Amino acid sequence: MKSVLISGGAGFIGSHLCDRLLLRTDVEKLVVVDNLWTGLFDNIAHIRDPRFHFVKSDVETLRSSEKFDEIYHLASPASPPWYMKEPKRTISANLLGAFRLLELLKKGGRFGFTSTSEVYGDPLVSPQPESYKGQVDCTGPRSSYDESKRCTESLLFEMQRTQGLDLKVVRPFNIYGPRTRSDDGRAVSNFITQALAGRPITVFGDGKQSRSWGYVDDVVDGFARYFWINETDYKGPLNVGNDREISVLEVAQYVSKLVGGVPIVFEPSPPQDPTNRRPDLTNANYVMPEWSCKISYEQGVAMTLDWFRDKIKVGAAE
Amino acid sequence: MKSVLISGGAGFIGSHLCDRLLLRTDVEKLVVVDNLWTGLFDNIAHIRDPRFHFVKSDVETLRSSEKFDEIYHLASPASPPWYMKEPKRTISANLLGAFRLLELLKKGGRFGFTSTSEVYGDPLVSPQPESYKGQVDCTGPRSSYDESKRCTESLLFEMQRTQGLDLKVVRPFNIYGPRTRSDDGRAVSNFITQALAGRPITVFGDGKQSRSWGYVDDVVDGFARYFWINETDYKGPLNVGNDREISVLEVAQYVSKLVGGVPIVFEPSPPQDPTNRRPDLTNANYVMPEWSCKISYEQGVAMTLDWFRDKIKVGAAE
Repeated sequence: MKSVLISGGAGFIGSHLCDRLLLRTDVEKLVVVDNLWTGLFDNIAHIRDPRFHFVKSDVETLRSSEKFDEIYHLASPASPPWYMKEPKRTISANLLGAFRLLELLKKGGRFGFTSTSEVYGDPLVSPQPESYKGQVDCTGPRSSYDESKRCTESLLFEMQRTQGLDLKVVRPFNIYGPRTRSDDGRAVSNFITQALAGRPITVFGDGKQSRSWGYVDDVVDGFARYFWINETDYKGPLNVGNDREISVLEVAQYVSKLVGGVPIVFEPSPPQDPTNRRPDLTNANYVMPEWSCKISYEQGVAMTLDWFRDKIKVGAAE
Repeated sequence: MKSVLISGGAGFIGSHLCDRLLLRTDVEKLVVVDNLWTGLFDNIAHIRDPRFHFVKSDVETLRSSEKFDEIYHLASPASPPWYMKEPKRTISANLLGAFRLLELLKKGGRFGFTSTSEVYGDPLVSPQPESYKGQVDCTGPRSSYDESKRCTESLLFEMQRTQGLDLKVVRPFNIYGPRTRSDDGRAVSNFITQALAGRPITVFGDGKQSRSWGYVDDVVDGFARYFWINETDYKGPLNVGNDREISVLEVAQYVSKLVGGVPIVFEPSPPQDPTNRRPDLTNANYVMPEWSCKISYEQGVAMTLDWFRDKIKVGAAE
């Protein structure tokens, strides 16, 4: 039986991972630590399970005398407006968080980390294999996120190399879906919340920049499979995402169509917005051949729209 | 009058910076914090100045109720064998060190940081301008140094962007000279200590990899000028080094010649050794036009050899 800790477990991705962890019968205790900075208690309010424990705390200063068999470190804002506003806190959550969590891992325990495809920066190769070293401006306004993820990878892979840490690192590509904050600030949720409010959809830049949109269920399914595999000879970071690349403008037009047509307006690009992003999934297919992204962006965006619509209705009824 | 703190002040570079700080008449107090991991008390033992205070401590856990007008953060091992052996501690010194030191800076105070040309990794452009984003493997065996320097730059430049931190960051290229540890492990000091012991000089790889060797007096002169300039519109990281690029083998042959001929032997390259490294000094020439590297590698290596020879004599006489 395993005791498991997840940092950022009340977040968009973290809460979905909690749901999957509680499906495991070998988990005897699941502790979520979250400071509710970008996480929301609402995301875990549905959980009724005696194994589940919520601790409201910054991860880097978490008090605990208990050690854990498995630790998953997800605590970090992931949307540019959030991390650009509080860069020091972002670096602290990722990196100082990892230092603290390593202290709480039982000897021989497993450490999982959600890194990011932002380690590739504005990539010059497409699709991006895990071996691509990236093109990140370490002095730029997005660097608190990109560089703290890179440096946390470094810390963990160095612990793997020198101490034999049982390590699983995923590099998710753009994820969207239910439980995204309405004020998250990234494309799909922005488009949907604008469209549902009857406001014009705002596209930054010309909208030709492309992303690989992964529906949260598909991506978290990939995380769970990789995190919980015991037998694999693959030790590196693993790209997890949808390799169908779609332009931002196409998504905006699709959302507009779904709600019956709202206008699209264009605004200047945020600084250092990547022009493209697409995972090379060769290693993912090798490590977990039964996994793939099954939900098309058309289905996923429609389901996300329904979720936001229901949330607005519930909010209005309360 | 200024109170100044320097972390890593007993190190190779740090001790030279101490000497220059004590030449300043506006410095009323200079506190060195050093844990003597790679620093040596010998490097500062010559200092007889009532303004000077030495504190033996890790920088990241430094106890102080005092705040400082200027802080220079140099605490870090800089040689691959040292940081590859203790990568977690290396990341901690750089990044957690920077977090701690920011707490000790007076409002409006100046923060100086010695980053590294290793932020460029194995560069694909030569010479490297500061805008080059680099090619670093954030999961590799050199990453603890490269990525913690990158992430510390990120932290500091984000503090500059969001809080108006008065920041000076230098990116030194290869530095050599007096006060290098004899067991430092990098090329020039290795060659010299081997040659003076009458042992063969070990060159890793084929020796064709090139470096830009900067004599410590020239490079620290550049640091001091940049750190202490008050009026400049340049806010970015600054390359400081010698832009004359010399192969490792040429230096080995020169050292061999200086000591009257010792054989050169070749061993396999360490992992991810950069193939080339040369600073683009356009910004340095703009910010401090009166500065340049004045000491040729021939002179500098000869002076370093003399210093090591004297040190051995003193050691033998004691």
